[in-house]
Amino acid sequence: MANEKKLVEAITSMEEDFAQWYTDVVKKAELIDYASVRGCMILRPNGYAIWENIQKVLDAKFKETGVENVYMPLLIPESLLQREKDHVEGFAPEVAWVTQGGLEPLTEKLCIRPTSETLFCDFYSNIIQSHRDLPKVYNQWCSVVRWEKTTRPFLRTMEFLWQEGHTAHATAIEAEERTVQMLNIYADFCENYLAIPMVKGRKTDKEKFAGAHATYTIEALMHDGKALQSGTSHNFGDGFAKAFNIQYTDKENKLQYVHQTSWGLTTRIIGAIIMVHGDNSGLVLPPMIAPTQVMVVPIAQHKEGVLDKAYELKKTLESNFRVKVDDSDKSPGWKFSEQEMRGIPVRIELGPKDIEANQAVIVRRDTREKIIVSFDELEVKLDEILKTMQKEMLERARTHRDAHTYVATNFEEFKDTIQNKPGFVKAMWCGDVACEDKIKEETSATSRCMPFEQEEVAKTCVCCGKPAKSMVYWGKAY
Amino acid sequence: MANEKKLVEAITSMEEDFAQWYTDVVKKAELIDYASVRGCMILRPNGYAIWENIQKVLDAKFKETGVENVYMPLLIPESLLQREKDHVEGFAPEVAWVTQGGLEPLTEKLCIRPTSETLFCDFYSNIIQSHRDLPKVYNQWCSVVRWEKTTRPFLRTMEFLWQEGHTAHATAIEAEERTVQMLNIYADFCENYLAIPMVKGRKTDKEKFAGAHATYTIEALMHDGKALQSGTSHNFGDGFAKAFNIQYTDKENKLQYVHQTSWGLTTRIIGAIIMVHGDNSGLVLPPMIAPTQVMVVPIAQHKEGVLDKAYELKKTLESNFRVKVDDSDKSPGWKFSEQEMRGIPVRIELGPKDIEANQAVIVRRDTREKIIVSFDELEVKLDEILKTMQKEMLERARTHRDAHTYVATNFEEFKDTIQNKPGFVKAMWCGDVACEDKIKEETSATSRCMPFEQEEVAKTCVCCGKPAKSMVYWGKAY
Ligand SMILES: [Zn+2]
Ligand SMILES: [Zn+2]
Repeated sequence: MANEKKLVEAITSMEEDFAQWYTDVVKKAELIDYASVRGCMILRPNGYAIWENIQKVLDAKFKETGVENVYMPLLIPESLLQREKDHVEGFAPEVAWVTQGGLEPLTEKLCIRPTSETLFCDFYSNIIQSHRDLPKVYNQWCSVVRWEKTTRPFLRTMEFLWQEGHTAHATAIEAEERTVQMLNIYADFCENYLAIPMVKGRKTDKEKFAGAHATYTIEALMHDGKALQSGTSHNFGDGFAKAFNIQYTDKENKLQYVHQTSWGLTTRIIGAIIMVHGDNSGLVLPPMIAPTQVMVVPIAQHKEGVLDKAYELKKTLESNFRVKVDDSDKSPGWKFSEQEMRGIPVRIELGPKDIEANQAVIVRRDTREKIIVSFDELEVKLDEILKTMQKEMLERARTHRDAHTYVATNFEEFKDTIQNKPGFVKAMWCGDVACEDKIKEETSATSRCMPFEQEEVAKTCVCCGKPAKSMVYWGKAY
Repeated sequence: MANEKKLVEAITSMEEDFAQWYTDVVKKAELIDYASVRGCMILRPNGYAIWENIQKVLDAKFKETGVENVYMPLLIPESLLQREKDHVEGFAPEVAWVTQGGLEPLTEKLCIRPTSETLFCDFYSNIIQSHRDLPKVYNQWCSVVRWEKTTRPFLRTMEFLWQEGHTAHATAIEAEERTVQMLNIYADFCENYLAIPMVKGRKTDKEKFAGAHATYTIEALMHDGKALQSGTSHNFGDGFAKAFNIQYTDKENKLQYVHQTSWGLTTRIIGAIIMVHGDNSGLVLPPMIAPTQVMVVPIAQHKEGVLDKAYELKKTLESNFRVKVDDSDKSPGWKFSEQEMRGIPVRIELGPKDIEANQAVIVRRDTREKIIVSFDELEVKLDEILKTMQKEMLERARTHRDAHTYVATNFEEFKDTIQNKPGFVKAMWCGDVACEDKIKEETSATSRCMPFEQEEVAKTCVCCGKPAKSMVYWGKAY
């Protein structure tokens, strides 16, 4: 009982201190541990298993569209990183440099990849000759390193896991289609598997990727009203192709530059899952992505037949569900707290009286609803409950997001909203970076994106009053 | 026709120059490309897909035994690497050092992991307190860097992909059982999936891992008679536990050191697949691991109905086989060469006359055998053919290995065999490292392992003539 209290008490409530609540959940749910290098994290089994499920689903969806996986080297020579001007300016200040190999100093220093555009471009310049070699639609799953000053688990770490797709196409139209196609895959995945609704749109020039013509993004709203950029897809046009001389001969035997894209999604998305769905008892995982969907918790497990029945249920259920039995020597109360902390979507409570009555109690993690189900109906009901939970989690997240999306039509209203109502602010923009800069300086909000679904909420720029060009989502962001 | 010739002519024959043949296959089958950092490789889709299949199978087998996956940081502080004396001596000369992060020099240099024992030990010392926390059976899939002077694709590269398992146990017996269990998983996997027979045994002290009490290994024989160490499993005893202070309280509330193991298998195994099964037309992939098992090659594909039938076959077959249609505008002859170079286990030739006769021609990659099969029987026959091919590939590899395994009972015979008969040499050993050193110096053969299946092929050491302690497999190795 003392122990049970300890586990629950250890979490700060999210209303009291959201940042501390987040850190507590990450640690107590055993998703992450800190490593001996500052800013580096250990992904523990509970955390890594979520990433494995994300990988499995996304990788299959990528491959359906013709993506092939490769592995590129970890190290990039300084001279290669410098080939594209905007790109090197964007990344050089935040990379880790290898200057010594074995016992000897290197003649040219190598950086640990912060991203692999330059490696893919170098590779593509070697293997692309003819229009027959196009398109190339390659992707890799790997880790990258960025030398961050301040770090937070999943959200900003020195090293993180991701996938990075890099493609080369014969035409600009094909590259643009691929850029948008991958953004849609990310958005659909987040909605259907992670139960997180996304705003899809284009980044302003100020916020776009170093070297890109256009960056598209999916933006999510966290429980505390802050935004999280959750995946990006870039159209490079032929900028990198010109810097790296990636040319092909077309059907008329003329030399042409390729058009390129890249797109990535990182372990940061696990931070979004936590901050969209979590509550004061810990993590809440959407059933579609949860490594364990069902925890069977035996009550009075020392009594004859209880554990046997628990194992029997597991055996029946495991062909359709990811199910475990908690047969440890902890008390049921402790097990409940632990299952809740870890965000396992449902638990099945099973005691001697239940067994006698040919039933079990299913408890939903999100609503705490208890549903008594006869053993004969268990599989059907469980499937229903998990599907309902998945659907309702998305609906709740959408309702929360919509309730925290505001409109501002002048700067006073804008400042007041940003300061007092955490959430997205929809407001018009003239297209001038000066207004973006001013907004950031005075409110610390940034332009999140120019959504694909434009609305004319006013005629003039919320900042300068000049005629507006686009409606923009603004917000404070992680 | 000119092009077809070019593709085939480009491979050096293995009898003429085995090393060049190997390099040619690796390049021409598009498994690998060279990157701009010396000694670093790009794993291209054909190469990476083999690794993905290896991962999928092994990962499932690991998990069946209770393995959980994690991800540990890429970077190790110098002070952490130095904690275990033998270990740092083994690895420090061959690591890459990061000395600069962002724009500033680091106060402590960090090495890119050459292996992660020290990180896991540091982690375990934080999370293991009680016997209830044991065992820990963690694994990670990642890349490691070792600053090698000479490199060869897959066999020895600056960076390679692998899995590294790291476990902590309450007792020495449990650690030893886990060490052997994982070695057996590797050996069974290599035999059943890669069709490569393995000699299982223990490394001598000279050849064991830096910091291990005992290293177990699986050793394969390549087509040229050289040995390849294909996977290793180490029992660390409590050496690392003492260096890193990893202790737990046992059931009597006494402090005890844990007993640890580690085990790894790398992309080097792809080199073994190439060198055991390949021939002068290129790669030959065992059906169980081949990314594409069946290539449908339409003949006269411009004729009405041919391509339609090819797609129809693919659709029928793809629920049970990994199948593709080569509908490119290359000639059938070119497609045959390409399918052979890439080692795709079987092709299905399909022309207008075949379609009229309600049949297709299946051609085995390994034997070139042509089998005419009616469409109605295609699935059943294909399954039979692939299974037969898998079985016969293992048998051929075993026959080759056995035919190139010799016995030597005195040093003259030993030297003569090593020099003139490429292969394994079974010979007795006194247990003295001086004899190992002498053998290596005079013959450049090394002790591969002391096999679990011991035979007494003589009474005395093949080198010094003193009483023998073990029978050892010797050989020149990659
Ligand atoms: Zn303006
Ligand atoms: Zn001897």
